[in-house]
Amino acid sequence: MAAASAFPPALIRLIRNLERLPGVGDKTATRFALQILRWSGAQARELSASIGELHGKIRLCAQCHTFSEQDPCPICADPKRESSVICVVEDPGDLLALEKAGAFRGRYHVLHGVLAPMEGIGPEQLKIQALLERVDRDGIQEVIVATSSTVAGEATAVYVSDLLRKHRVKVTRIACGLPMGMDLKYADRMTLQRALAARCDMAP
Amino acid sequence: MAAASAFPPALIRLIRNLERLPGVGDKTATRFALQILRWSGAQARELSASIGELHGKIRLCAQCHTFSEQDPCPICADPKRESSVICVVEDPGDLLALEKAGAFRGRYHVLHGVLAPMEGIGPEQLKIQALLERVDRDGIQEVIVATSSTVAGEATAVYVSDLLRKHRVKVTRIACGLPMGMDLKYADRMTLQRALAARCDMAP
Repeated sequence: MAAASAFPPALIRLIRNLERLPGVGDKTATRFALQILRWSGAQARELSASIGELHGKIRLCAQCHTFSEQDPCPICADPKRESSVICVVEDPGDLLALEKAGAFRGRYHVLHGVLAPMEGIGPEQLKIQALLERVDRDGIQEVIVATSSTVAGEATAVYVSDLLRKHRVKVTRIACGLPMGMDLKYADRMTLQRALAARCDMAP
Repeated sequence: MAAASAFPPALIRLIRNLERLPGVGDKTATRFALQILRWSGAQARELSASIGELHGKIRLCAQCHTFSEQDPCPICADPKRESSVICVVEDPGDLLALEKAGAFRGRYHVLHGVLAPMEGIGPEQLKIQALLERVDRDGIQEVIVATSSTVAGEATAVYVSDLLRKHRVKVTRIACGLPMGMDLKYADRMTLQRALAARCDMAP
């Protein structure tokens, strides 16, 4: 390729590595690499170091399985969090989104994925068994299933709640409806059906 | 912030560093960081190393000022490239795009930016003086000004070509017109005006 001779090997190597990031193709990776080259050497070394130290510092919390430097993680270790309610999420990014919303004061359980039989991801690949054991061991009162409202997320929610029903625990699902700020006419049919079915009384 | 306690410090540090990439905000940086965490340790160290070595390995070619591990760069050192034609581009990314197109067999000159008086970028901040000296020294026959067709790119093209006119060299500008595959009705007025003015005879 002509490109190989136009760019120095060290830059090509970085571009190839950056292309492995999600949603990043050749053009974006090139833009990132050229930007890094424009930074000071100290800024580039700081990014390099923060990537290099990541795997050494971060492990999974043995209780909720989120990424953490401590075990248990700060949320599991926090005595002020409600310990009898568990919110089940797909991955640590979802946990972060809920924490940013500040709407939940219980503990979490990270599945690390959703059921995807076509990709070979079955119940054994997810932290489902650990969830069942945790529910029994810690006397959990309620499990809120907060997987995404995608096809795989819904299927995982149904699978997990079916299993949990045998464990004498209340199982709930986060609501599906019109997102804030959305024009009703642009909502898909499924969302509208669900939003109507889950309608609630208006405050007087 | 709630987020600070939900994510370990090493992850927060990486997210803050990734946010400095162009067009990357909090959400994308978080997605990148979580993805890097899912990679193997070896893959993460490879990305870290490729960023860390970049500034040490890459310098500017003294002739065309592109990024290169050697000086002169492979293009300037290539005896098969036409040495009397110079294509002037804004930055190394533009050089790469032209090389990928494979349509130019001469040499390049990288300005490293465009005139932007509001941001304090005048002719002294760009590699313009070096271009003039190069034209005189190397007996250049033609300079193709290939800055972008943005307002700043056009202004820089006019400025550079005005200077070059005193140096007894043919100065050309890459054509402006309808891009391939574009529906005419969606083209802006300026592009259509230029495309009409630069119309050419059709091959029989």
